[in-house]
Amino acid sequence: MAVSTIEWADGRIRMIDQTLLPNEFKYIYCDDLPSTWEAIKSLRVRGAPAIGIAGALGAVLGIWNSAAKTYEAFAAELKSARPTAVNLFWALDRISRTEVLLAEALEIIAEDKAMCRAIGQHGMALLNENDTILTHCNAGGLATSDYGTALAVMFSAHKAGKQIQVYADETRPLLQGARLTTWELMQAGIDVTLICDNMAAQVMKEGKIQCVIVGADRIAANGDTANKIGTYNVAILAEAHGIPFYVAAPTSTLDFALETGAEIPIEQRAAEEVTKGFGKLTAPEGVKVYSPAFDVTPAALVTAIITEKGIARAPYTENLNALRDS
Amino acid sequence: MAVSTIEWADGRIRMIDQTLLPNEFKYIYCDDLPSTWEAIKSLRVRGAPAIGIAGALGAVLGIWNSAAKTYEAFAAELKSARPTAVNLFWALDRISRTEVLLAEALEIIAEDKAMCRAIGQHGMALLNENDTILTHCNAGGLATSDYGTALAVMFSAHKAGKQIQVYADETRPLLQGARLTTWELMQAGIDVTLICDNMAAQVMKEGKIQCVIVGADRIAANGDTANKIGTYNVAILAEAHGIPFYVAAPTSTLDFALETGAEIPIEQRAAEEVTKGFGKLTAPEGVKVYSPAFDVTPAALVTAIITEKGIARAPYTENLNALRDS
Repeated sequence: MAVSTIEWADGRIRMIDQTLLPNEFKYIYCDDLPSTWEAIKSLRVRGAPAIGIAGALGAVLGIWNSAAKTYEAFAAELKSARPTAVNLFWALDRISRTEVLLAEALEIIAEDKAMCRAIGQHGMALLNENDTILTHCNAGGLATSDYGTALAVMFSAHKAGKQIQVYADETRPLLQGARLTTWELMQAGIDVTLICDNMAAQVMKEGKIQCVIVGADRIAANGDTANKIGTYNVAILAEAHGIPFYVAAPTSTLDFALETGAEIPIEQRAAEEVTKGFGKLTAPEGVKVYSPAFDVTPAALVTAIITEKGIARAPYTENLNALRDS
Repeated sequence: MAVSTIEWADGRIRMIDQTLLPNEFKYIYCDDLPSTWEAIKSLRVRGAPAIGIAGALGAVLGIWNSAAKTYEAFAAELKSARPTAVNLFWALDRISRTEVLLAEALEIIAEDKAMCRAIGQHGMALLNENDTILTHCNAGGLATSDYGTALAVMFSAHKAGKQIQVYADETRPLLQGARLTTWELMQAGIDVTLICDNMAAQVMKEGKIQCVIVGADRIAANGDTANKIGTYNVAILAEAHGIPFYVAAPTSTLDFALETGAEIPIEQRAAEEVTKGFGKLTAPEGVKVYSPAFDVTPAALVTAIITEKGIARAPYTENLNALRDS
């Protein structure tokens, strides 16, 4: 990324307002906890690692601005913005264990950048010359402070001179694939083609896809992976076509407290995101809508998990543990 | 349907402009071949049976208005509007074999209505009390002259007093599920919930779906089924969750000239339907787009085909043949 998704700037958080992309590129500033909460809830900043960073910096702002409240109250309030992504919890818990809050938050950013590069390096070994990769949602630089997770693999491969192409699912309802992933890849000069989510099986059947790489919002100890709604669809389609399905995520996304993905809470989003997602009503007034923001892909469908410490394969309970301790 | 999707009215074709639904309900009139062609191409009238009817009536108008041209020239021009749905070809070929063009076109409409009711009657036997059905795109009254095909099964079950619920895929890029299927079912008082296409696997995993019923644009002799893009996705997901996948279509949708679905041409649609489908640019200017309008579901994923003559199951080559001759 030539531009920085989220950073600390003179006592405030500066972030790209991702709801405006790709039509408008604009920075916004948060200088207190409510504005940080609003930015997370409204997806102005999004992606598990980036909301972890926003959470850590938001806690710093919150404690600076209001000494009356306890740290636990801040943390609980921030966690309520997005209940699925564990990185937010992880970053907030880490912050609570240190006296030097801001220094720790900035260290999280520095580690995040190093993590992105390491995921890219490990993951590019899985790609062959001329591979075409399908990705879902946006696990790119806009989801982290740097190179991203799933997209880091593509950026690294491209930078190393490998010829690759990418198909990007548009990712309804909020179109992170159409708006953000295509934008990032086009900026980097990587060949990207946009499809609707429901075209993935046809594209696979035509032999166009050699592997799938997605990010993750939370990974249980057994490898079950929560990610943007539609990821589980893609995983089933990949298996049906014999295509490897890779998850790229930092080890901070691993939640060893959860034995399986069944314990991961699934955030429900507002009906209007589906029925008025484009500023115009595209369904009958008052229609019932069911809109889970995430789904859980069973570990059995995951070919490998790419982390900054290396690549884990099944059996995940054993191998993710080993990776953590490495 | 309380309202008529397409009919012959005083020397003109009257049809609902489906591009305006559900926000606006408006009839448009076609009194020559170019306006009929435009209505088919722009999806003002859509759905395999309904475009078959539009084709037949368009041929009547074309020959009436311009005696200089041959019938074959008319038919070829009309067929170029939508190359995938065989009903258009079938209706045009049938028209060419009769002297009494208009009478034959009107007979097609009458048969279409009877066909819808018969599909509904046969199909409802597959539903149990309290079943929830997933459907994709719109195979309802708006796709035919009456009750539809896939939705005919639901309308018939509902009318017979069976408790059923429906989940409707929104069906990107043109949102026929969000705009049309929800509208038809809500009008009929059937409990319908809208989801994005990429939520289907999660909804199935939660145990919410007892069967899938979709329409078809063309069915090869071996049962391979061309239908709206995303149908093949849903079929794979249904199989992965052990959920029956039914196709509802009149026998005029069967194309015995095609041994398998590999021979079915797949129409490609314009990039703007994906990137500007809601009147607003939702992807970077100039992004590459791949947008097949249909996909082909292999017969192996189809639990049964519901026709007006009865229900066919595998082996389809044998059983569809028997059904045709019954």
